[in-house]
Amino acid sequence: MFRTLAIVGVGLIGGSIALAARARGVAQQIIGIGPSRFHLEAAVRQGMLDTFDTELKAAGNADAAIVCTPVNQIAQHVAELVVITRPGTLITDVGSTKAGIVRTLAAELRDGFCFVGGHPLAGSEKSGPQFADARLFENRLVILTPNRHFNHDAAPRATAMWEALGARVKLMSPEEHDRAMAITSHLPHLVAAALAAMLPDELRELAASGFRDTTRIAGGDPRLWLAIVEQNQQAIDDALNELISNVAACFTGSDWGLDRTVKSDVVLKLLTDAKRNRDALGS
Amino acid sequence: MFRTLAIVGVGLIGGSIALAARARGVAQQIIGIGPSRFHLEAAVRQGMLDTFDTELKAAGNADAAIVCTPVNQIAQHVAELVVITRPGTLITDVGSTKAGIVRTLAAELRDGFCFVGGHPLAGSEKSGPQFADARLFENRLVILTPNRHFNHDAAPRATAMWEALGARVKLMSPEEHDRAMAITSHLPHLVAAALAAMLPDELRELAASGFRDTTRIAGGDPRLWLAIVEQNQQAIDDALNELISNVAACFTGSDWGLDRTVKSDVVLKLLTDAKRNRDALGS
Repeated sequence: MFRTLAIVGVGLIGGSIALAARARGVAQQIIGIGPSRFHLEAAVRQGMLDTFDTELKAAGNADAAIVCTPVNQIAQHVAELVVITRPGTLITDVGSTKAGIVRTLAAELRDGFCFVGGHPLAGSEKSGPQFADARLFENRLVILTPNRHFNHDAAPRATAMWEALGARVKLMSPEEHDRAMAITSHLPHLVAAALAAMLPDELRELAASGFRDTTRIAGGDPRLWLAIVEQNQQAIDDALNELISNVAACFTGSDWGLDRTVKSDVVLKLLTDAKRNRDALGS
Repeated sequence: MFRTLAIVGVGLIGGSIALAARARGVAQQIIGIGPSRFHLEAAVRQGMLDTFDTELKAAGNADAAIVCTPVNQIAQHVAELVVITRPGTLITDVGSTKAGIVRTLAAELRDGFCFVGGHPLAGSEKSGPQFADARLFENRLVILTPNRHFNHDAAPRATAMWEALGARVKLMSPEEHDRAMAITSHLPHLVAAALAAMLPDELRELAASGFRDTTRIAGGDPRLWLAIVEQNQQAIDDALNELISNVAACFTGSDWGLDRTVKSDVVLKLLTDAKRNRDALGS
């Protein structure tokens, strides 16, 4: 599919793309670009990459470039790639937020360049190429967020690439994507983190499998997630307000904390709705 | 250890106690007591129980009785067992809340009967004896909550029983237990349920592993969990207020939802504290 595929940011996701592209013959040559010569050399030795560079301009000859850097760096990296690559080079990203990135690029760059925002719904609380997995995207959903400012070929080409990597593709608007992720990912992350942060050391031994499951994603990289929260703050705040209002509705009485009591009918409805939704997801 | 062990309520926990007691030779005979003849007959056929009855009085000759019914029924079942069993019969329970149960029993019954409250920190979002597991308690912690109103032999005898079933035992006061569980179990359950309940059907396909982990416990039985929330409402409300205040502190600005912005330093501290606590728990 590609002679040269450039992966900008070789972490869990970028590394997994490299492994999947290699395993499925999606690219003849894979070049990894990142700040750490040490990590990139290791990735080349392990056969994940063919070559590497610490400068973005090394992606100049790629047929396709996938930006896998933190969400607060993606727009800048895409903008630089547009300048240094040949016309028609497919550029996409894997950021967990989309509206801010697409808005920035649409405002700053000439129309028609071959970019489409992307977000594979795969990953884990782990980070780093040592956790990369060639099968990470198998049957997983990748959201692409086409925008009329960009070349209309970008979405079908990125779709073909992701399908070749084993994923399924769904198109959404950037704003629709971000509102959805606030509910399915960003707010759950913030809440899981708040629960984990509340655990006093002396109660650690009492945290059983339920607590571990509920807070697992709180093991994610704080700086990556701070950038996500900053990028999608409005939608997360909206979702947070809805959540707080739904949980607070379980208790009645004064705000003074003295005579609040549980509203059993509200709690039962919440628990019942929750079980129906969770059962529908499967394990 | 026991000639006859009575298990009142043969669900996931009661069934697992039966299987573990059988596998480890803790009781010569195991009798299961519950409302459903159909389910109990199946449990006898599978070898989980030796015999069963739908009437509590069948536990009259047991050397030990473990009450595994929903938390809002435990106090009544224990009180009845005290009446029908021989003096010195060990009676304990596995309820997820302790203060209300112990308070009710201490008020209603004569001092000195051989009861100690218990809570094995094991289980799952599944319910029913079909998910019972002989190894459910291996190396898991069981909290026992001794109370001065009851026979002082109860705690050491229950400790010996749980250790024979493979578990480790920790003693706490009933109130201390309930405050701890509000943070490690009950509030996480309520929050996971609120997140799951918020998921619109059309976003279901977008819920990836993070959402699944965070909301897994929301698959639990709504009526069992309503009873837990009702029993421990004060401690859950306190923990909920702390959580809401910690999450709300991540945003600044007016309450009108128009110009709230994220406070990056607060979010970063929350995410960093959360990761430290979560990493300390292990996978």
